[in-house]
Amino acid sequence: MKISKIGEFGLIEQVIAPEFKELVKKHVTGIGDDCSIIPISQEKAHLFTTDMLVENTHFLRNKIAAYQLGFKSLAVNLSDIAAMGGQPLASYLSIGLPKDMEVEWMEEFMRGYKDLSEDEEVPLLGGDTTSSRDAIVINVGVTGEMARANIKRRSDARPGDIVCVTGNLGDSAGGLQVILDELPEDQVSGRLLDQHLTPYPHVSEGLWLARNQGVHAMIDVSDGIGSDLQHILKASGLKGHINLEQLPMSLELQQQARIYNWNPLELAISGGEDYVLLVTIHPDQFDQTAASFRKHFNRELYPIGHLDRGEPGITYLKDQKEVRDLKEGYQHF
Amino acid sequence: MKISKIGEFGLIEQVIAPEFKELVKKHVTGIGDDCSIIPISQEKAHLFTTDMLVENTHFLRNKIAAYQLGFKSLAVNLSDIAAMGGQPLASYLSIGLPKDMEVEWMEEFMRGYKDLSEDEEVPLLGGDTTSSRDAIVINVGVTGEMARANIKRRSDARPGDIVCVTGNLGDSAGGLQVILDELPEDQVSGRLLDQHLTPYPHVSEGLWLARNQGVHAMIDVSDGIGSDLQHILKASGLKGHINLEQLPMSLELQQQARIYNWNPLELAISGGEDYVLLVTIHPDQFDQTAASFRKHFNRELYPIGHLDRGEPGITYLKDQKEVRDLKEGYQHF
Repeated sequence: MKISKIGEFGLIEQVIAPEFKELVKKHVTGIGDDCSIIPISQEKAHLFTTDMLVENTHFLRNKIAAYQLGFKSLAVNLSDIAAMGGQPLASYLSIGLPKDMEVEWMEEFMRGYKDLSEDEEVPLLGGDTTSSRDAIVINVGVTGEMARANIKRRSDARPGDIVCVTGNLGDSAGGLQVILDELPEDQVSGRLLDQHLTPYPHVSEGLWLARNQGVHAMIDVSDGIGSDLQHILKASGLKGHINLEQLPMSLELQQQARIYNWNPLELAISGGEDYVLLVTIHPDQFDQTAASFRKHFNRELYPIGHLDRGEPGITYLKDQKEVRDLKEGYQHF
Repeated sequence: MKISKIGEFGLIEQVIAPEFKELVKKHVTGIGDDCSIIPISQEKAHLFTTDMLVENTHFLRNKIAAYQLGFKSLAVNLSDIAAMGGQPLASYLSIGLPKDMEVEWMEEFMRGYKDLSEDEEVPLLGGDTTSSRDAIVINVGVTGEMARANIKRRSDARPGDIVCVTGNLGDSAGGLQVILDELPEDQVSGRLLDQHLTPYPHVSEGLWLARNQGVHAMIDVSDGIGSDLQHILKASGLKGHINLEQLPMSLELQQQARIYNWNPLELAISGGEDYVLLVTIHPDQFDQTAASFRKHFNRELYPIGHLDRGEPGITYLKDQKEVRDLKEGYQHF
């Protein structure tokens, strides 16, 4: 059977993960969350996450500047540490480059990588450089640490929890659309492009949310909430309800959607790469948490739905009525 | 300037490492040793190492079985933990695969990866699977820990130290030669092939050596002692003397070298990928350490030279006379 048949999650669930269950010690979390978790003392745990970016699968060399690619390669990993509520400690960069590439490209890549490293005070402590015949290949790993008491697992969601996000949805997908359709770059489309090419990971938000007892489960929005919320629902054995009219979308996305006839709901739900956090919060503590969040970050913590007992799966609602087809859901707006 | 001009070490030393010096905290070791080192308590340190393997650069798909590639991908990283004297804790595997590959290939890859994981009791705790348009790309990371008092850095070598290796040199390079020249596979060439395709990392040896006070610097032999010893010499500011007649070489390598007219000295010094440990030991403690090593592992700790004050660089000696050309050095045997 071809690998394309069983896909990424199939490979992980059927071929890779089952083999290692016996080797994983008690209190250690392996495959199946944003990061692995290894306790290093009574109080603290060590986190690790890693992501591979392959040219022509994850990016096109002539559609992303080296600076942006360097920035983004680190950002997507910091976002996974953020999703656990961890403090990133160090990063590791492996890169395979075709021999005929210019040193200047790598300098620009490192400039982007370093700008984010400095902002988050995360040193690059190691890695590997090698040659690759055709494609640029990048693998970044990030280690972090956190208080064991504050760990927010995908499986920690509870019935009744309010589902929230820490920022707008769909901007990154809109930016990708601008690239793919070669749309003109102006101030509006530029904002979407920035969200796609240099997404800023919500590390401070993750750290802050993890310290709140009312916050139960967290994950970062890398594949789109339609897919990422499913991970929480599966791990927690719950059902999700998402209110389409509550999905936060930027004015830029709404404007471009009108001009180019995009369905912003599809971009917000399935587009992915927003790298905001998706969080579930105890209903009694939502108001207070959202108010403190606003005070602390001067931004909203957006409620977009809630969780219930039931078969894992998402119901999309508009005016409290179920919407089965997002295309239709949008036409109803 | 093209990347091929400045090479891997040039990229690391000129483009990557300098940028991060300021971000690296006290007592933390970043780029420049086999692993990064982060203290996690008064007594213990956290280690991390990572290696990228790209098809057509590091391996040819039709010349290495999936099982062997899985085994080797992990082995080369465990070897870096061994070189610090650390205890490996967990591994992380990122793999990019062309879509038309068979799931069975991945199953075999994981079987090799898991066999070594089980032998060393190191669980796979995470990673990434993705598609790659053309080439198979593998990135493995391994975390480990160790007593801070036992860390063996490349910079810890001292004048007068005896230089030793924990196993034969050149077998892996001989195995590569068998593959490249498509030589017949028999019991003898098979032993060399095994050393090349499924090298066994010297983790126990590293742990044991690190506990010995007389052991100063360690590194694993990945590029060949001619290159790897240079790293120790540069980091410690010393000069090295290697006695060619002391280099341990297997009977298999010697036999194949005679048949196919290889220069075994070149293979032993420059071939690389032996994944034995290269160790420097205080001269007063060498005899006792070597005797205990023999008793513990039922194998030799081979002395192959010594260190001196002076400009970093290696002098090769035969019958205590300098040999400038290894080709000639071999003809003198």
